[in-house]
Amino acid sequence: MQRWKTINSKLVFDNPWCQVRQDEVELPNGIVLDDYFVNIRPDIALVLAVTPKREIVFVRQYRHGVSEILLELPGGSFNPQLEDGLTAARRELEEETGYVAERTNLIATLYDNPVKDTNKIYLVLAENAQPSGTQQLDITEDVEIVLIPVTEVLEKISTGEICVCGTIAALFLGLNLLSFE
Amino acid sequence: MQRWKTINSKLVFDNPWCQVRQDEVELPNGIVLDDYFVNIRPDIALVLAVTPKREIVFVRQYRHGVSEILLELPGGSFNPQLEDGLTAARRELEEETGYVAERTNLIATLYDNPVKDTNKIYLVLAENAQPSGTQQLDITEDVEIVLIPVTEVLEKISTGEICVCGTIAALFLGLNLLSFE
Repeated sequence: MQRWKTINSKLVFDNPWCQVRQDEVELPNGIVLDDYFVNIRPDIALVLAVTPKREIVFVRQYRHGVSEILLELPGGSFNPQLEDGLTAARRELEEETGYVAERTNLIATLYDNPVKDTNKIYLVLAENAQPSGTQQLDITEDVEIVLIPVTEVLEKISTGEICVCGTIAALFLGLNLLSFE
Repeated sequence: MQRWKTINSKLVFDNPWCQVRQDEVELPNGIVLDDYFVNIRPDIALVLAVTPKREIVFVRQYRHGVSEILLELPGGSFNPQLEDGLTAARRELEEETGYVAERTNLIATLYDNPVKDTNKIYLVLAENAQPSGTQQLDITEDVEIVLIPVTEVLEKISTGEICVCGTIAALFLGLNLLSFE
C-alpha cells in the first residue's frame, strides 16, 4: 500500500471562503490522473463541553449546505499556524455559547472527508463548563444554546435529532472517556 | 430560528468531479451575503458489515485529500435518483470487498459537513457478511481488506488508527444496535 505521487498542483478556484486545488497525480500502478480535485479547508475545533450537572452544551443553528436547522456541538474553524486546537476550542466555545470550561483536553484528531478535503477536526473535551464567559456571535450567526443531559444523548442520536458525523464521533469518544471517571 | 432565503444561485466551478455553487442569501436579520459557497457532492453509502464470527469488514486505502493511508468502513458515492441507499450499500460492499451480506438495514442518514457540503451519508448495517461475491475495483483503487473483531474496534478508535468521523459514527450507531441482539 503506497501513497500517490503529486506531479503538479494548482489552485483552480481561489476565494477566501472556498479553495479548490487540482492535482496531477501518479498512482503506484503507474496510472496518471490530471484532474484530482481537493478542497483546501481550514482545520476545525469541535468541543464536547460538559456542565457540573452532566449536561452537554449543544448549539442549534441553520446550516446552508443542507438547508436545515441542526443540533451540533459548538465549534469552528481556525488557522493552526496562529493557534493550537485547544486554544481554538476554548475560544470557539466562549464566542459561540458564552461557556467557559475549567479543564480542556484534546481527545482525538479526526478527519471528516479525507478523500476530498484537507482539514482535520480537533475534538476537545471541556469539563466543568459554566456560562461565565461572554458570547460573541458574528452578525451572520443565530445560535440557540441547548443543554442536553448526558443520559439523553443516545436517544437523540437514535431518533436522528443529532445527525452530524463529527458531533456523533465526538460524543462516542467523549462519553466513553467520561464513563471511566 | 429560521432558514436563510436563497436569492440567487449559480454554478461557479463545474467539473464532473467537483462542483461549487455560489449562493446569494438573505439571512433572517435582513443581511444579504452574495458569496456563500457550497460544494455539491453526491450522497454516500457507508457499510458496517459484520461477519458470522463478529468481525467488522474494514478497508485500508490511500486518501489523497489528506495524503494518508487510512482504515475506514467500505462505501462510496451514488446517485439517489438512480438507486436507493440500501442498494448502493450492497453494491459498494461487494465491489470494494467481495463481501455479500444476508441482511441489510438502513440505520441512519447523517451529514458529514452540513455547512459546506450538500450530501447525506446513508449508514447501512450489513449482517452475516461473507466473502462470496466478486470484488470489482476501479483501476484507480488499491484496497486492503481488514477484518477486525467487534471487541477490538474501540481500542483502534482510541489509539487513533480509526480516525474518520463517518466511520466512527457508524461504529457507534451500529455497535449499539448489535449489543441489543
